[in-house]
Amino acid sequence: MTIPFSDRISDVPRSFIREILKVAIDPQIISFAGGLPNRNFFPVEALQNASNKVFETAGREALQYANSEGDLILREMIASRYKEKKGLDIKVDNILITSGSQQGLDLMGKILLNDGDGVVIEEPGYLGAIQAFSVYRASFHPVPISEEGMDTERLQSILQQKKPRILYTVPNFQNPSGITYSEAGRDALAAVLERSDTLLIEDDPYGELRFTGKDKTSFAKRLPDQTVMLGSFSKIVAPGLRIGWIVAPDLIMEKLIVAKQASDLHTQYLGQLIIRQFLQDNDLDGHISTITDVYNQQRLAMIRGVEQYFPEGVQFTRPEGGMFLWMTLPSDLSAMSLFHRAIDKKVAFVPGDPFYASRKHVSTLRLNFSCVDKAGIDTGMARLGGAVREAMEQR
Amino acid sequence: MTIPFSDRISDVPRSFIREILKVAIDPQIISFAGGLPNRNFFPVEALQNASNKVFETAGREALQYANSEGDLILREMIASRYKEKKGLDIKVDNILITSGSQQGLDLMGKILLNDGDGVVIEEPGYLGAIQAFSVYRASFHPVPISEEGMDTERLQSILQQKKPRILYTVPNFQNPSGITYSEAGRDALAAVLERSDTLLIEDDPYGELRFTGKDKTSFAKRLPDQTVMLGSFSKIVAPGLRIGWIVAPDLIMEKLIVAKQASDLHTQYLGQLIIRQFLQDNDLDGHISTITDVYNQQRLAMIRGVEQYFPEGVQFTRPEGGMFLWMTLPSDLSAMSLFHRAIDKKVAFVPGDPFYASRKHVSTLRLNFSCVDKAGIDTGMARLGGAVREAMEQR
Repeated sequence: MTIPFSDRISDVPRSFIREILKVAIDPQIISFAGGLPNRNFFPVEALQNASNKVFETAGREALQYANSEGDLILREMIASRYKEKKGLDIKVDNILITSGSQQGLDLMGKILLNDGDGVVIEEPGYLGAIQAFSVYRASFHPVPISEEGMDTERLQSILQQKKPRILYTVPNFQNPSGITYSEAGRDALAAVLERSDTLLIEDDPYGELRFTGKDKTSFAKRLPDQTVMLGSFSKIVAPGLRIGWIVAPDLIMEKLIVAKQASDLHTQYLGQLIIRQFLQDNDLDGHISTITDVYNQQRLAMIRGVEQYFPEGVQFTRPEGGMFLWMTLPSDLSAMSLFHRAIDKKVAFVPGDPFYASRKHVSTLRLNFSCVDKAGIDTGMARLGGAVREAMEQR
Repeated sequence: MTIPFSDRISDVPRSFIREILKVAIDPQIISFAGGLPNRNFFPVEALQNASNKVFETAGREALQYANSEGDLILREMIASRYKEKKGLDIKVDNILITSGSQQGLDLMGKILLNDGDGVVIEEPGYLGAIQAFSVYRASFHPVPISEEGMDTERLQSILQQKKPRILYTVPNFQNPSGITYSEAGRDALAAVLERSDTLLIEDDPYGELRFTGKDKTSFAKRLPDQTVMLGSFSKIVAPGLRIGWIVAPDLIMEKLIVAKQASDLHTQYLGQLIIRQFLQDNDLDGHISTITDVYNQQRLAMIRGVEQYFPEGVQFTRPEGGMFLWMTLPSDLSAMSLFHRAIDKKVAFVPGDPFYASRKHVSTLRLNFSCVDKAGIDTGMARLGGAVREAMEQR
């Protein structure tokens, strides 16, 4: 038989990162290519204790089917944390627990996008969002970002001409660039977006991983009826539990719940209860500061590595938090060809290409600093700096 | 702002069952309305032990991001079980772990259905499948089923006229009817489907819950290149873990993995490892026979209840396994109006209406026997029989 696949699945890019990382499995390779939190700092023992408590006090509930919205008490805890950390008043009914925030993206695409509908994405932008919205046949409108935020002039013209349905942003310690929008940049974006029919999705997986500087205010403060927030425990507790959430206004939430039911009935309940018990019995802020101390040390080691081992003409971001540093090579150097040279020297990174909706052979690249210790970062950056130097000498 | 939702989400029926069950939360009500496995027989202690072993031997792996296909060893175990129980040779690469088999339905819809594409469903049929495929704007073509299987004459004419993309069947102890297709019925369906471009989805969540009779052979034996199988640990271990799987031919699997990545990256890894450890350390067959012994006792109590308390003119299926018994009232009695009368008498069931793609005010209903003990079933059936009797006297 011939299998006629849907048009939507033909449009989805296969994970480029996943493909290129297959060459990086050599254990000799120091990898800055990953996008993972550092597993050495997962609170394994505390989660095991939480798991045991759940099995002992609510084992049968944890193992039974559960409601689609997610555990009520866990949602209350998320709401309280929004109040405490961001001064936001979120009702429990406006929170839906998702199977990671990747599912938040899938559900938003599902309920909002018809074929060809416009989605504004950041350039460079998060690949998982591009994948999720591609499934619903989005037309992507990339807008360049800088340390201030989005290019609002470009945005304005897209809003007028294309009437996009969604604007997707990761305004804190963005993946891949490490960029955090300034308050002024947020104000400017909100002013442009206000009174349009474009919904803003604020994805904030890294926001709590701040090393220096002051927290910036959420778009939900500026555009409360027009903002959907995605959150996740993946970077602050552990990703393998796949517990994320969506905060959305009433009308949107109603559709999200229908879509959630149809997609997987509900998020794994044992994992929800483990996280809830973990939050009850442990100091999440203390745990986060353990992680951020380590990540910050590693970030500083990476910055020192660039300064020490890299030739002139290489630029990079100095992120105030998160897991990534973004590097811009001289414009005639392709990050993709540097990648192969770097692999020969036993160091890996992600070339910028997959983070652009259309551009290829870019001269930007992403460096992850969460997973390699300081000594490894020093060695790896010396190797990578050498590879850049060679590439520049041989042009 | 106005929120323009996608066309697809407007088409999805909200869960009718969920809505009507809101009236059945009174603890005095004996409920045959649920569709849940009996939580009293979840292997809580064994799963807690498995969880502890996972935390102790592979805690950091279990909590980290994992691959989209699912745990390799768990997939090997699933493949071995297919070999042992059904004589099927399944390669590990043709198995994808999903977040419950509801996600299997969502992924199949995602990769196969364009707007308006045809899906053959059983009548009555499983509501979760109707919901999942509605999201992808399927046109449903219901085909009546009986103890033999599908009405193949009707099916043939649909295949010719509508060229449906998918045929969806639950051939063992179907939800809602409890029906199991005969071998002859399976042969007939396969003969009609062969050489068409319609893919058969064999969803088999209840197949291992057999009380009497002999296992029937899978469609995968008859139409190996044209059959996708969905499986789940929900009914044989525990649903709260949300671990299901899809078995699909290579070309389909390739697309499924792309869709899985875009949907939620991967199924919760801790849960996969807990199930794997549970399977390694415990006798699943022994556990299943504990469950089936109880369910069978309850099924027999329910059948005795019908015989004892119900008036002439009420028909019902005698399922050889699973969790449901299907009842047909005299054709001028509406199950929906009986529902309200039954609630007054403190007994609940699911009227047949939601299990039909279009028909309403049907005279069929679904009775679940997995969750109420024998004494409760006797009392509940006496109440329900009384309600039926009254309804018949008052017509």
